[in-house]
Amino acid sequence: MSERAIGVFDSGVGGLTVLKEMVRLLPGEELVYLGDTARVPYGTKSPRTVLRYALEAAAFLVEQRVKMLVVACNTASSVALTELEERFSLPVVGVIEPGARKAVAVTRNRRVGVIGTEGTIASGAYTRAIQALNPSVEVFSAPCPLFVPLAEEGWAEHPVAVLTAREYLAPLMENGIDTLVLGCTHYPLLKNTLRLVLGDGVALVDSAEETSRTVEGMLNGRKLPRQSLPGQTRFFVTDIPTRFVRVGGAFLGHSLQGVTQVSLD
Amino acid sequence: MSERAIGVFDSGVGGLTVLKEMVRLLPGEELVYLGDTARVPYGTKSPRTVLRYALEAAAFLVEQRVKMLVVACNTASSVALTELEERFSLPVVGVIEPGARKAVAVTRNRRVGVIGTEGTIASGAYTRAIQALNPSVEVFSAPCPLFVPLAEEGWAEHPVAVLTAREYLAPLMENGIDTLVLGCTHYPLLKNTLRLVLGDGVALVDSAEETSRTVEGMLNGRKLPRQSLPGQTRFFVTDIPTRFVRVGGAFLGHSLQGVTQVSLD
Repeated sequence: MSERAIGVFDSGVGGLTVLKEMVRLLPGEELVYLGDTARVPYGTKSPRTVLRYALEAAAFLVEQRVKMLVVACNTASSVALTELEERFSLPVVGVIEPGARKAVAVTRNRRVGVIGTEGTIASGAYTRAIQALNPSVEVFSAPCPLFVPLAEEGWAEHPVAVLTAREYLAPLMENGIDTLVLGCTHYPLLKNTLRLVLGDGVALVDSAEETSRTVEGMLNGRKLPRQSLPGQTRFFVTDIPTRFVRVGGAFLGHSLQGVTQVSLD
Repeated sequence: MSERAIGVFDSGVGGLTVLKEMVRLLPGEELVYLGDTARVPYGTKSPRTVLRYALEAAAFLVEQRVKMLVVACNTASSVALTELEERFSLPVVGVIEPGARKAVAVTRNRRVGVIGTEGTIASGAYTRAIQALNPSVEVFSAPCPLFVPLAEEGWAEHPVAVLTAREYLAPLMENGIDTLVLGCTHYPLLKNTLRLVLGDGVALVDSAEETSRTVEGMLNGRKLPRQSLPGQTRFFVTDIPTRFVRVGGAFLGHSLQGVTQVSLD
């Protein structure tokens, strides 16, 4: 069982920030990454539609005989995690809970900001997760729909991104947050821009890093770490790979190879 | 036959700019609008995937017994028009040809700019259509991926949109264009921003207006205009209607009612 791969899925390239951290932290693990690029994005779609897509993506990975599922997409994690756990008899890790736990550990003034897609913010999943851990923490959230296209355009540090971030973050800063959860797997690419706008007084919580640590902990707890080194990553996408390879390469910081197109619907 | 509705489809809300012009120009026509909101956008997806989605959308409208199909999406028009004409035995109108014809009529220096999604620009459909009409016209094109999310965010006239437009349009202006084709059905919302950046020396060609005139001409030519007044519009979407109603209302300039969710896959 421990020799099996870990399945990771996202609507597209965003989850590659989580994958990158997993490769760094868990170099011995085999990974199977699925990007649902024919139906990307999930962040503007309804919970019911995202749930359907997430169940189809997970079913594909389960067919690949993975030992664990990582939902490397905040929108899917926010609406589908419980159903995925009920439907499939293997451990499922989402990105919300790890980010929420870190935010609660880091904040000193108990004023936490959360940014994400329209779908993630509308779900209220981070607010619930953070307040379940510590009801005295106040959560201020803001959807930032332009951050995903800015990151995919390669404009994460462009003046347009800075101007956009100033507008989106102004209400959170007025509320005096000392911690900001990057509640979308695209947002780690915007870290420099966010730091520029927020200054040094606000800690950034990167779900990608936290999720990888959660995966490591679960593997160890269930005696599932792979023993042989090194692990490989296989990539699957639902649209032709051209754009995934181009944009995804920028996300991973190296070129992407061995990408196969599959159909989920 | 003439009493039948005209079917209009787009990946989402963008085609509503075409619909709006059709309602204005052809108030007697019954219209059926389909937005494939569960799979929006088409503009970043591959020709093969867009073709599959377009065929499914058209099949749905044909089942509604429409007398004509309007592909109110530049990306779908650029890759699927020929297949749609071959597959379905009814008149099909896309948005590329009307825009190209207008651009050729308007330009004086025979230097035409075209902006659109990644998919539309990569297809080269406008360049082919314009040069088929007049081979001496030079076409300079630029994908503008951030314009769609800016329009949907309601930021069409925001300083972020102006800064973005300056960056995207700079190479076209350096090439001395005197005409710019808005090759995406979202872009008419950005007209004021584009005029601000381009100045008075560049004519804007709005595919929505041109397409409506083409539809009118085809109806008259085939003796298909509806005789009774007024016509109604029915709306169908593939995701739940909430976001379509909210964003689409801003596109149409009035509230949207009677939106039904359907499944294409």
